[in-house]
Amino acid sequence: MLKLYYAPGSCAVASHLALEHSGVSYEAHKVDFAKQEQRSPAYLAINPKGRVPALITSLGVLTETPAILAYIAQCFPAARLAPLDDPWQFAQVQSFNSYLCSTVHVAHAHRYRGYRWSDDEAAIASMKQKVPQTMKACFEEIENNLIKGPFVLGDHYSICDMYLFTITNWLEGDEVDVNWFPKVAALRQWMLNNPVVQKVLKAQ
Amino acid sequence: MLKLYYAPGSCAVASHLALEHSGVSYEAHKVDFAKQEQRSPAYLAINPKGRVPALITSLGVLTETPAILAYIAQCFPAARLAPLDDPWQFAQVQSFNSYLCSTVHVAHAHRYRGYRWSDDEAAIASMKQKVPQTMKACFEEIENNLIKGPFVLGDHYSICDMYLFTITNWLEGDEVDVNWFPKVAALRQWMLNNPVVQKVLKAQ
Repeated sequence: MLKLYYAPGSCAVASHLALEHSGVSYEAHKVDFAKQEQRSPAYLAINPKGRVPALITSLGVLTETPAILAYIAQCFPAARLAPLDDPWQFAQVQSFNSYLCSTVHVAHAHRYRGYRWSDDEAAIASMKQKVPQTMKACFEEIENNLIKGPFVLGDHYSICDMYLFTITNWLEGDEVDVNWFPKVAALRQWMLNNPVVQKVLKAQ
Repeated sequence: MLKLYYAPGSCAVASHLALEHSGVSYEAHKVDFAKQEQRSPAYLAINPKGRVPALITSLGVLTETPAILAYIAQCFPAARLAPLDDPWQFAQVQSFNSYLCSTVHVAHAHRYRGYRWSDDEAAIASMKQKVPQTMKACFEEIENNLIKGPFVLGDHYSICDMYLFTITNWLEGDEVDVNWFPKVAALRQWMLNNPVVQKVLKAQ
């Protein structure tokens, strides 16, 4: 059975949503960041990167959110989690998810994980201070150029929405008001009303 | 005809290599970072993110390296640039490329682009100072856990190698010796001897 290692509220929410939407049976295992469980020998044996999510399959362990999301979509095509049959549409999925992982998640990470990129306390504080500005800029790009509406890809609810929803939930902590971005805010509300999404949020 | 916007030596090298390996006819257009051409109104009309690479197709503009690489592989399957028919193998490609874009490229970017995450000169200098350490850690992860050898995926030369080669070429500037990582160094040398790779490097 597929097994997902996640931390509540982390980027692993996206993979958790995709699994739940796929209809497959799976187990979700919480990794307790408060106890630094992601750095425990037991977890490092699963994912040497010491991060979540990690998806355990019969073929091995898969890491990195965009890879896990596309893999779930490909394994369970009946759930229509991504436009798999059209390389151009699939490329839009990939482009959007790449932007989230390499730019938006990274912008957010400078609030809590500045130690990854500097050993200096003042520098880490300085990075933290700029997060509201960088996250606002990222969401302006998403609102103005990337979301077609009502979903990221237009009429097709997909893994892109699940990943965006996950990161949108970080905005309040980053001192950015989701209501500055009407398409993003409407999508978030639609997802908060979705019973599958509610089930995952409750489980976490 | 496909058109690639690139800056020499940037992460766009990977897409340039994939296009050349695919066998398709394409045009490559240089974006001059020294003249801040990526911020010009003409270029922002092509890619509002103000970054390279951007791939212009008859269907629209595609951005983000992992998306461009997979799209080229899917459009020209005869070139066998990725294992497209096996979702698990394709997921390995995606996982590797996601790690490069979200962790390794980001680690490197703190050398030259610290201003993205802080407005403070001392903080930017502090980030720069840590780059040799973070890039070394990333390449330890690649060498020890991610490259199967001789290529990233084992015996199959793929878009993963093209992307890794691109970033490996940044190591010297990041004060990291590629020879600390024997599999990475051997792959880099193999690619430097490859006539298609040589053609792209010369063209840039």
